[in-house]
Amino acid sequence: MSRRTLSWSAVLGMAALLALPALAAANSQDLEAAEAGKLAESVGINSMWVVVAAVLVIFMQAGFAFLEIGFSRGKNVGTVVAKILTNFSIAAICFWAVGFAIAFGVHDAFGIDGLWGTDGFFLTDYFGHPSPDPGVIPPDGGQAAFPVMGLSDATVEAKFLFQFAFCAVSLAIVWGTTLERIKFGVYIIYAIVFASLIYPLAAGWVFGGGFLQTGDWLGTGIAGMQDFAGSTAVHLIGATGALAVLLLLGPRRGKYGPDGKPRAIPGHSMPIFGLGVIILLIGWFGFNPGSTLGALDGRFTEVAAVTLLAAAAGVIFAVITAAWKTKTIDIGMAGNGMIGALVAITAPSGYVELWAAPIIGAVAGIIVPLGVYAIDKYIDDPVGALTAHGLCGVWGTLACGLFTAPRLAQYNAFGNPDGGLFYSGSFAQLIAQAAGILIVFTFVFSMSYGTFWLIKKVYGLRVSDEEEEAGLDITEHGMYGYPEQFIPAPELIGYATSPGSRDVPAPQVTPKEVTT
Amino acid sequence: MSRRTLSWSAVLGMAALLALPALAAANSQDLEAAEAGKLAESVGINSMWVVVAAVLVIFMQAGFAFLEIGFSRGKNVGTVVAKILTNFSIAAICFWAVGFAIAFGVHDAFGIDGLWGTDGFFLTDYFGHPSPDPGVIPPDGGQAAFPVMGLSDATVEAKFLFQFAFCAVSLAIVWGTTLERIKFGVYIIYAIVFASLIYPLAAGWVFGGGFLQTGDWLGTGIAGMQDFAGSTAVHLIGATGALAVLLLLGPRRGKYGPDGKPRAIPGHSMPIFGLGVIILLIGWFGFNPGSTLGALDGRFTEVAAVTLLAAAAGVIFAVITAAWKTKTIDIGMAGNGMIGALVAITAPSGYVELWAAPIIGAVAGIIVPLGVYAIDKYIDDPVGALTAHGLCGVWGTLACGLFTAPRLAQYNAFGNPDGGLFYSGSFAQLIAQAAGILIVFTFVFSMSYGTFWLIKKVYGLRVSDEEEEAGLDITEHGMYGYPEQFIPAPELIGYATSPGSRDVPAPQVTPKEVTT
Amino acid sequence: MSRRTLSWSAVLGMAALLALPALAAANSQDLEAAEAGKLAESVGINSMWVVVAAVLVIFMQAGFAFLEIGFSRGKNVGTVVAKILTNFSIAAICFWAVGFAIAFGVHDAFGIDGLWGTDGFFLTDYFGHPSPDPGVIPPDGGQAAFPVMGLSDATVEAKFLFQFAFCAVSLAIVWGTTLERIKFGVYIIYAIVFASLIYPLAAGWVFGGGFLQTGDWLGTGIAGMQDFAGSTAVHLIGATGALAVLLLLGPRRGKYGPDGKPRAIPGHSMPIFGLGVIILLIGWFGFNPGSTLGALDGRFTEVAAVTLLAAAAGVIFAVITAAWKTKTIDIGMAGNGMIGALVAITAPSGYVELWAAPIIGAVAGIIVPLGVYAIDKYIDDPVGALTAHGLCGVWGTLACGLFTAPRLAQYNAFGNPDGGLFYSGSFAQLIAQAAGILIVFTFVFSMSYGTFWLIKKVYGLRVSDEEEEAGLDITEHGMYGYPEQFIPAPELIGYATSPGSRDVPAPQVTPKEVTT
Repeated sequence: MSRRTLSWSAVLGMAALLALPALAAANSQDLEAAEAGKLAESVGINSMWVVVAAVLVIFMQAGFAFLEIGFSRGKNVGTVVAKILTNFSIAAICFWAVGFAIAFGVHDAFGIDGLWGTDGFFLTDYFGHPSPDPGVIPPDGGQAAFPVMGLSDATVEAKFLFQFAFCAVSLAIVWGTTLERIKFGVYIIYAIVFASLIYPLAAGWVFGGGFLQTGDWLGTGIAGMQDFAGSTAVHLIGATGALAVLLLLGPRRGKYGPDGKPRAIPGHSMPIFGLGVIILLIGWFGFNPGSTLGALDGRFTEVAAVTLLAAAAGVIFAVITAAWKTKTIDIGMAGNGMIGALVAITAPSGYVELWAAPIIGAVAGIIVPLGVYAIDKYIDDPVGALTAHGLCGVWGTLACGLFTAPRLAQYNAFGNPDGGLFYSGSFAQLIAQAAGILIVFTFVFSMSYGTFWLIKKVYGLRVSDEEEEAGLDITEHGMYGYPEQFIPAPELIGYATSPGSRDVPAPQVTPKEVTT
Repeated sequence: MSRRTLSWSAVLGMAALLALPALAAANSQDLEAAEAGKLAESVGINSMWVVVAAVLVIFMQAGFAFLEIGFSRGKNVGTVVAKILTNFSIAAICFWAVGFAIAFGVHDAFGIDGLWGTDGFFLTDYFGHPSPDPGVIPPDGGQAAFPVMGLSDATVEAKFLFQFAFCAVSLAIVWGTTLERIKFGVYIIYAIVFASLIYPLAAGWVFGGGFLQTGDWLGTGIAGMQDFAGSTAVHLIGATGALAVLLLLGPRRGKYGPDGKPRAIPGHSMPIFGLGVIILLIGWFGFNPGSTLGALDGRFTEVAAVTLLAAAAGVIFAVITAAWKTKTIDIGMAGNGMIGALVAITAPSGYVELWAAPIIGAVAGIIVPLGVYAIDKYIDDPVGALTAHGLCGVWGTLACGLFTAPRLAQYNAFGNPDGGLFYSGSFAQLIAQAAGILIVFTFVFSMSYGTFWLIKKVYGLRVSDEEEEAGLDITEHGMYGYPEQFIPAPELIGYATSPGSRDVPAPQVTPKEVTT
Repeated sequence: MSRRTLSWSAVLGMAALLALPALAAANSQDLEAAEAGKLAESVGINSMWVVVAAVLVIFMQAGFAFLEIGFSRGKNVGTVVAKILTNFSIAAICFWAVGFAIAFGVHDAFGIDGLWGTDGFFLTDYFGHPSPDPGVIPPDGGQAAFPVMGLSDATVEAKFLFQFAFCAVSLAIVWGTTLERIKFGVYIIYAIVFASLIYPLAAGWVFGGGFLQTGDWLGTGIAGMQDFAGSTAVHLIGATGALAVLLLLGPRRGKYGPDGKPRAIPGHSMPIFGLGVIILLIGWFGFNPGSTLGALDGRFTEVAAVTLLAAAAGVIFAVITAAWKTKTIDIGMAGNGMIGALVAITAPSGYVELWAAPIIGAVAGIIVPLGVYAIDKYIDDPVGALTAHGLCGVWGTLACGLFTAPRLAQYNAFGNPDGGLFYSGSFAQLIAQAAGILIVFTFVFSMSYGTFWLIKKVYGLRVSDEEEEAGLDITEHGMYGYPEQFIPAPELIGYATSPGSRDVPAPQVTPKEVTT
């Protein structure tokens, strides 16, 4: 059973799990290599930073969950928990089996440089190798897996954990916009396609050694794209998937009045939303500084400071802009302003000086309320992700073309070494950024729209009107997220077999206080 | 005042605190040793990883708190907060005074190898020693404190913090099952016995240099037990304590109908439950990879990847299994499936290859719903801990006997170097695992049942029926966890002396919305 | 445009942002210096610890937010989210522009040693320097920026992040006491003054190389003050600001009855409060051990263990003390006892042996309930911050004068090398501590009272009675924090333009359950 056969079968889903024991045999031969020698100290140190950063990024799953729960009504909160756990898990298995190899393996599919990776499915080449990157950084000094990020010697397991966490963030971004009306099964199907193919292909092009990163495409001699931690490769990908599903899914019932004007459907808990935002901020200190993939050169500390200043300016300018438009201090805009600024600084965080960070963040802070108000007129995006992750992702990616400093551009082997427009007077980097955005958007939108269109035909995207009214918690999961808000006194509760769950009652329960 | 006297007096409770100043005198003599020399760089680096991991594990206290609060009714939520804080604190003092020495001191009580540690109470031998493990790793090269985990040179203070965090996790596991009906005082009494004696003795046997770890018992020449991070030594111990108290405590009022069939008593908040689960996942990235007790060999990155894949498979298979049995996507099962899989991979995480992780996690994912449904018929375990931490702890410990790879078995000085059944064809490791499980279960159950039996006789385990109806928050703590859900308008609130607290009102308050 | 002009203009507020591009020019000349050489390994390692610790401390923002939200009524919860985000952001920009230079630059203003720093505004001297501390530790071996904490070689960006996080904590402490009645604009104005001037000046005196730290003042030859991580320099500063605003702001409506006796106004959620407390505990493992500013000497592990033991004793003794006074296990006191003990151990955490930690924590645990009960009779401090951060901050600072061990005092170049009273029999250190407390308190109180007095005259501190009744969420932010608790059925909701926000309705909404 060849490696490639194995990988493609995994794309089909969980079935691949059954193939696992077969891999055990191939494993013993790696034993000798693993024992060859002691690791360099730097491997352990750099890996520690990568793993710590990965854990912070994984924590962002809680951030997305709580941001979404806060912006949902109380009848649709439990489903978010189930969705986050399920999506995260599907993504982990698929990215391990297929995605990591496609995204970060040596990009030589069909003998074409920069297309996608063809080696390292199930991390098989790395079984038992605590050594630096065998396979990913080829011994012959050929194309390395992370040329832009520096040839970090962190272990491949550490890098896998970190890159998986990125994939999981990108996937989480897709769903915030679909709250309160989507069928649960849609999450599962798209997650498999996304974590196995869509994300790995596009992210690999941008920072896995692909043609956008190296600029080696179309024979144009265009500069390599700069996206330090994924304004495009993570956030725009997610927002593009979100746009695709939204166009097919439609708005929540009651979102637009008979006159076509949008109504506010307030989420049920600003504290829960706030918790989500702060957790996302914390996670971003892994997201950006962790993208150095090592600690020994101290560069990650600059990235961390840049990240902080952008986030701060984003909040301030989002609050000011929203106050100017609505005459009030908008809580949601304060939070989304921070997120939009963090998205925007993600691409430039490794390439710009401190002074540029608050400017990039401030512009994102202005974009957030204006984008949300404009989009809300036509598309029902309950969490504002199209703006925060989409528009701000575009802005941040373009910002590299303006603000990248020559000192830091030199960390990137393929970009314009003279830096962005404001340093070099050259549009070279800006063009490379714009081209990259267009290609990634077009690819991800096509693939996602196609996938969702197929799902809609075969399975359906949307719950029925009655189910939407009753809420997804009770109709999709047979339990309420906040039972005491909806369920009558205990003596009326039916029999059931599991703690926290219950048989599906009729959706038309009478709202009633819990009795003590 | 001898050290042993000191230690036993500490077992009696907080009284030991008064003895503290006396220790100051013994301290000055250590000063010279502390200044002897500069530390090796590796001490700081490995200690950093251990402390970071310890902080992640301490964060799991929030995970347990929120999992339990989510699965409680709104009238019993504040008590969980008070319990977590109090238990954590008692455990810290007791484990420092007595537990750490018993568990991880040189195991030579009564001159019998492997019984329990007799040295290092109050960390006195280590006062002022930032040097590697004086006392714990004897200078004469004798039996080391952590032979299985490798002779890490992290400081003893770092190891103390990490091992205390494990003890606190094990203790937290005991209480989830007792929600909504136990007297607060029971927590306090058992916590002292647990953190001073029960946990240190059993955990020491398994991974503190005791007879289960070395296999040096009964003259049988059985292999040493493998439990990398505590499927048995932490999770099964906690679940066993939970079983003991449950048998004496009984179910919540109304849990079983007149026909003896179980009823669901839904917890009040799936979002809070979900927060708990994700925090636990985050903490587990300290729990398992931190058990390498060092970062420089890079091995912790393998452990982290193994942990992720098991957790993911656990969610997927728990959701599938629950859907097959109940025709719905069960939110609680998704979360408990993740926890069960994490518990299961805890013992093998340092010994198995990546491919084994999703298999071990998947089996745990199947065990979780089936175990919960089966146990729920007879025992009222509101959070499913008997299954997630008990059954899955047993499965994970046994899994070492099946999946341990020879490459990784060699990190363990006492286990079967040829690995588990699937590699070696030998049952040796499997038998050692089963024997260890039996001995730990028997010991912890006897000790715990005895302790709870005594508490029941002298003090009582359970609140009155009226108190259970009114809820523990108001009856045990004189305040509601969610006052606005229960308390009438402000003008009716009595006088009180502390923010957030109030005089105990009559329990029969009329449920009423908060007035603005 | 001189640096000093720049800095003072920044004090005026966000306007400074506009000056940023001008800084770009000054930057290119730093490029050569940055490329001079490879960093020592220790820079990366120590910086990693400082950044990890900084992230933990930044996470404390969530801790403060949730502690405050839990202690607020449901009508005043969203405003806390907006406040935390806005304050954090303003503090980041101001501390970067001005504060860090004043606090940690070389203290030679007006040629007077120890007054305040005059160099490094906008971190300009450090642009592009990943090298150890140019400017902050002068090449000529003069006065170093962190003499007490050791000459860590962590990068200046890492230290900036860490020290900013401290400033943000201090600012957050100010506001807990002002819950439920303050105008939102007050936060903004005071945050600018606090993060630019008040905090940097006072904190710089205590641990940025100022006259309190060196003891070089008034020609008295008094010992240098010891405040390892900021019992005075962070917590007392915050609590002093809180006292200043409280005296001008007054109590919440209904807090004191016609007879002048205080009434309890219970916060709406103990679980949310509990989450806040545990997050604060987690953050403190960055706060204190991170103040070593490095990991390689292993000392941070001692600090972490000391911190844990103090926190544990604080909970136990606060619970006992509160139970003795009120005959109940007070949930809020358990949490505040932990916080008070953590505040108290903050100053001594780097100077005392393990045995002293539970004593210091226990005393703080006793102080907390007694202080809260006493203060509550006269001042309405909804979260108990005056006690937990103020009284306990004083106690912890004084405790250095009693418990500092000679072994650890030697890490401090200016304190009494013979240690505190219990070791040395000398009152020297105790006097230095008391003098430092008085000076910091007097300075911060005067500056803060003046600022708030001006705000009160010009803008007003307090919302109207009607707004206070309706709640700050709807009146200050035009949205409810928990809309389903207050807003009628969806069909009654007006048109609005942003997700999560809505037009301001009449405050007199009818409380009503959400309809499904």
